[in-house]
Amino acid sequence: MSKPYVIGMDMGGTNTVFGIVDARGHIIASDSIKTKKHSVFEDYIAELHDGVMRLIKANDLEDQIQGIGIGAPNGNYYTGEIQNAPNLPWGPNLPLAESISRSFDGIPVAVTNDANAAALGEMTYGAARGMKDFIMITLGTGVGSGIVVNGQLVYGHDGFAGELGHTIVKRTNGRLCGCGRVGCLEAYCSATGVARSAREFLEVRSEPSLLRNLQVEEITSKDVYDAAIAGDPLAKDIFDYTGTILGQAMADMVAFSSPQAFILFGGLAKSGDLLLKPLQDAFEKNLLPIYKGSVSILISELKEADAAVLGASALGWEAKYRYETPAAKTATEA
Amino acid sequence: MSKPYVIGMDMGGTNTVFGIVDARGHIIASDSIKTKKHSVFEDYIAELHDGVMRLIKANDLEDQIQGIGIGAPNGNYYTGEIQNAPNLPWGPNLPLAESISRSFDGIPVAVTNDANAAALGEMTYGAARGMKDFIMITLGTGVGSGIVVNGQLVYGHDGFAGELGHTIVKRTNGRLCGCGRVGCLEAYCSATGVARSAREFLEVRSEPSLLRNLQVEEITSKDVYDAAIAGDPLAKDIFDYTGTILGQAMADMVAFSSPQAFILFGGLAKSGDLLLKPLQDAFEKNLLPIYKGSVSILISELKEADAAVLGASALGWEAKYRYETPAAKTATEA
Repeated sequence: MSKPYVIGMDMGGTNTVFGIVDARGHIIASDSIKTKKHSVFEDYIAELHDGVMRLIKANDLEDQIQGIGIGAPNGNYYTGEIQNAPNLPWGPNLPLAESISRSFDGIPVAVTNDANAAALGEMTYGAARGMKDFIMITLGTGVGSGIVVNGQLVYGHDGFAGELGHTIVKRTNGRLCGCGRVGCLEAYCSATGVARSAREFLEVRSEPSLLRNLQVEEITSKDVYDAAIAGDPLAKDIFDYTGTILGQAMADMVAFSSPQAFILFGGLAKSGDLLLKPLQDAFEKNLLPIYKGSVSILISELKEADAAVLGASALGWEAKYRYETPAAKTATEA
Repeated sequence: MSKPYVIGMDMGGTNTVFGIVDARGHIIASDSIKTKKHSVFEDYIAELHDGVMRLIKANDLEDQIQGIGIGAPNGNYYTGEIQNAPNLPWGPNLPLAESISRSFDGIPVAVTNDANAAALGEMTYGAARGMKDFIMITLGTGVGSGIVVNGQLVYGHDGFAGELGHTIVKRTNGRLCGCGRVGCLEAYCSATGVARSAREFLEVRSEPSLLRNLQVEEITSKDVYDAAIAGDPLAKDIFDYTGTILGQAMADMVAFSSPQAFILFGGLAKSGDLLLKPLQDAFEKNLLPIYKGSVSILISELKEADAAVLGASALGWEAKYRYETPAAKTATEA
């Protein structure tokens, strides 16, 4: 019989946030630790275990936890490992599911990457409730994606499907992307992409702009947003440029899985019509005629602070990987 | 209990081919009719029914047919209709599944488009046997695609997923596509796209070429192939150009569903290394690093004459739509 609570963990480059979640998506209790405090992976796991156990005991929920879901950079659903995550200090292959399940005496664990976790959260508790086909786009430092087809998350044959931030939007004179290639969507439509656009626009164009009052190397997407809201035409043009590129790219994504909706999440997604207006225009203009008018573009309904933990927790309900002690394993096999 | 045979039907703009297929993918008998002979849709259905019944009776297989699978242009899996097919004479919405099931006294029918049917055929009987994640690309007059994720064909929320021939490969100065937009993959990498490339190359370049011996408006992709095989440098460049564009586009598709393989089908897919060499090079060069070396590019293993019927027949095993006479329906509901 299934138990009434799950643990959601969101492992970021800076903080690891975790919480106890009930079946209706309420976070009963949550806390966080610094991800990079420990130079040894096992010490990180031990502190995480202690933090979660403190929450469980404070709420009297021992033996009430069905599973643990974890969203982690480059988290692989099939292997339960973190593979080659650029922002973590502990080496190329980390047995995350095994380490967590072992430290919690065999509670089932499931792992995926953060954008996939966000898609699950949206499907279970947010704007995609009841949808069987949708695409989640996370607009943060990078551009992530989680794709749901026929009610199931698309993992691909190796667990690494859904890297739509790394489809090419500019084949000639494109921007260098963090992945080492040129012209990726992420290099234009992430928060850092918007800041790069600001630097490009300021250099190429000569008109006055509020952004010229700032140190050019320190301009952030938030600065561009503030300037656009204050009516700055150059800042508005940057949002037009960003929205148009994203809308064109999303129109191509529709030809793949014909989703009912896109759900946008993250800082940039909260820019309102500044981003959405040019995005919608470019999207509908570039759609293949059979799709026109049939795909919604929605903003996440989950609070940004809660979304990562909720999304990861949604994976906890169906978690299957369970660490067995060598002794228990021998007993089972005998 | 399931019966031992299915009918596969492939409805093309010119011919409709149909056959009786067993569980191991052997075509027991097949025949065809002209698709456009009748100006009334019901007359077409009647001739198709007669043709199939002749095969069934000649092989003594009355009551041995489990279902009928149909591949048809713009065939919609969910509605069983053909919707807005540009090359058929009978109007915008044709109730294909209903008409066929009715004419066969309620045998279950399933409909999809031709590229999806090809993907099912490849998964059931061909190069994709045992694969759960692959992408079928059909290189014919147009460029079609059928996407399989987690062992299931991707239909999308409206039944129209998998139109990868209409993703944009050239945003500026792109070729006009039959869909009314500009720069689609299909405008470059179909048989007609190759012929268009020939005309462009002959106009822009001045070197001698075997292709200059032909009427420029009548050059086909087969002419380009023959010239390239004969060593013509300009014709070889056309294949380089085509393969490079296709390889770049396929690298982006991997970021969506991370397939184990692509299966290429159709006339152009049989061009051998002329197409495959530049395609493979561009593909691997443009892949996101985490995917490099993990995706195969394979050529269909099905005979071109059989593939369409086999693919459609594969859908027959799981066909669910069944026409009920109004009388039977009333009886069931009472």
